[in-house]
Amino acid sequence: MQKPLILVSNDDGITSKGIHTLVNIMKELGDVIVVAPDSPQSGMGHAITVGDTLRLEENFIFEGIKAYECSGTPADCVKLARHYVLRDKRQPDVVVSGINHGSNTSISVLYSGTMSAAIEGAIEGTPAIGFSLCDYGTSIDFSHTEQYVKKITQQVLTKGLPKGVALNVNFPPKRNEAIKGIRICRQSNAKWVEDFDERFDPNGRRYFWMTGNFVNFDKGEDNDEWAIANNYVSVVPCEFDLTAHHSIPVLNDDWDILN
Amino acid sequence: MQKPLILVSNDDGITSKGIHTLVNIMKELGDVIVVAPDSPQSGMGHAITVGDTLRLEENFIFEGIKAYECSGTPADCVKLARHYVLRDKRQPDVVVSGINHGSNTSISVLYSGTMSAAIEGAIEGTPAIGFSLCDYGTSIDFSHTEQYVKKITQQVLTKGLPKGVALNVNFPPKRNEAIKGIRICRQSNAKWVEDFDERFDPNGRRYFWMTGNFVNFDKGEDNDEWAIANNYVSVVPCEFDLTAHHSIPVLNDDWDILN
Repeated sequence: MQKPLILVSNDDGITSKGIHTLVNIMKELGDVIVVAPDSPQSGMGHAITVGDTLRLEENFIFEGIKAYECSGTPADCVKLARHYVLRDKRQPDVVVSGINHGSNTSISVLYSGTMSAAIEGAIEGTPAIGFSLCDYGTSIDFSHTEQYVKKITQQVLTKGLPKGVALNVNFPPKRNEAIKGIRICRQSNAKWVEDFDERFDPNGRRYFWMTGNFVNFDKGEDNDEWAIANNYVSVVPCEFDLTAHHSIPVLNDDWDILN
Repeated sequence: MQKPLILVSNDDGITSKGIHTLVNIMKELGDVIVVAPDSPQSGMGHAITVGDTLRLEENFIFEGIKAYECSGTPADCVKLARHYVLRDKRQPDVVVSGINHGSNTSISVLYSGTMSAAIEGAIEGTPAIGFSLCDYGTSIDFSHTEQYVKKITQQVLTKGLPKGVALNVNFPPKRNEAIKGIRICRQSNAKWVEDFDERFDPNGRRYFWMTGNFVNFDKGEDNDEWAIANNYVSVVPCEFDLTAHHSIPVLNDDWDILN
């Protein structure tokens, strides 16, 4: 039987520990190709490069793996993989992105470059998964996530995913207690409350660092924040149809400027 | 009665014709404050600036209007407006973004900086609207959109919007026939098929321009692409919960690695 073809990307850049962890796991599951940013792209959301040029260079950082580094965003990487690197060739059976250094639960999915790579996969009709570890430490430890990354990817390779769905998978940080299991969740209702740290450069000109606090309004036990807090792996199926379908009849009834 | 406070942003930058058109319309409806990017930010999706500093400077381009230009993305602009410029002050009654030079129908909503500003407004609990004109011409004409921008904003100011909803409003290009009216639509099922225009710089190093064709798979008459093709204004209510809720029971039934 032909081994599955697995496209790997991320948003922390091709040299990050997370993508190296992910590539090592994927090598056990199939043939791997990497197209990833040449520098960190955190917070890039679903950005693409439209007003500027793109570079794509072969990279030899992964032993025995065909890999490319790209000057663009995670979404650009998946587009280049599909429409340039693999043009007229066999297409990937799954797109995996990560493992992100930091959480992409709740509203952070919107800002997540990791998930934009996965969602690009879903747009192309390929099952896709973004993996993130809810740990911002500099000496981040991915070891407790590895068996779950493997299990979830195998499950998706075997069973596929509903059309247009990409999975947003988040792992709890390594704790004394082992992970309890995997939960299918919804995106929790939470937000960032930003604070702007105002500073002055050596020329006396003002600048800012964006900081902020995460505020969770969601009391449910079926959401990603609950899962992470309770030491479960959270799996949120995400879609790229942003339509608030329930609001269409509301606006049709309510508005008096329609005809 | 107090005039409404209207926050204006965009993704084409503070000098673009589209935001000047929008500010002039909003001046008739309320008190206006502008926080917009200092340079074009098209295709930025929901990017935010997390690994770099931000600049924010007062700008005097709009006569009699308090305005700021920001070095960051459209989402950064709305965050800075909320949490710095208007911190501890009266909050906007509506966030409007645009008018974008180019279409943000269908899947383009994901890549749209215009809509990311509006969605940031919705995340903050403020009714929000992104306006885009489906015309990529350099001598773009917004005149036929003005009465509709005004009508839709007035409607939102009067009636509000469902919680967490931002409107994605697209206008057909100026045609010989007048716009037929306004339709509440869903996001159509379409995608971009990218092509990468491969070139070589003066040093012989390869680079790319992303180009592509828009392919519409959607035969429905209730979607934004149909509306624009048929000379209607398209209004898609959008939400920031990306959960594919219908897929949760599917995965719960289908997967054998849950516990």
